[in-house]
Amino acid sequence: MNDYQFKLAKLHGEFVWHSHADTDEVFIVIDGAMTLEFRDKTIPLVAGEMYVVPKGVEHRPVALQECCVMLVEPRGVVNTGDAGGIYTAQNNVWV
Amino acid sequence: MNDYQFKLAKLHGEFVWHSHADTDEVFIVIDGAMTLEFRDKTIPLVAGEMYVVPKGVEHRPVALQECCVMLVEPRGVVNTGDAGGIYTAQNNVWV
Repeated sequence: MNDYQFKLAKLHGEFVWHSHADTDEVFIVIDGAMTLEFRDKTIPLVAGEMYVVPKGVEHRPVALQECCVMLVEPRGVVNTGDAGGIYTAQNNVWV
Repeated sequence: MNDYQFKLAKLHGEFVWHSHADTDEVFIVIDGAMTLEFRDKTIPLVAGEMYVVPKGVEHRPVALQECCVMLVEPRGVVNTGDAGGIYTAQNNVWV
């Protein structure tokens, strides 16, 4: 939509700590449950809930069991933000 | 998120034909069912489905029974677009 993308992802396990310097990031949980860990708090989310991670704030998504989420963010945002590494996913894989 | 808003709305009945000259508009159906009418097609949507109305394209949301939706669009977009009228809603009513 405009210059934004809606990305479907399956999470399982602990992701890397990272932040996105230039954009907020929306998590919408489609199925299952997850937590968004911040340095100062932990936000539990279940299907039907959403959360906006503010620009520049370090966070780590954690899913004890497989969790389906939809992310909303500007085109081109890298999933691992400033952290990089083996969890970095390819963008623009259309479903 | 950034300069975008996620708006919750309940639809019931036939809305006005309108378009948004400057932005796409995302409909995500939370509960119930609705149709998005275009001049050349009709898109049925049920809970869990989403649709992106392209910028500048005339459309009319129709819900035979009450339907809960989440809209994603830039801050300040008017719900009735270019049409105005009695269905124009106040923006920035926070829940």
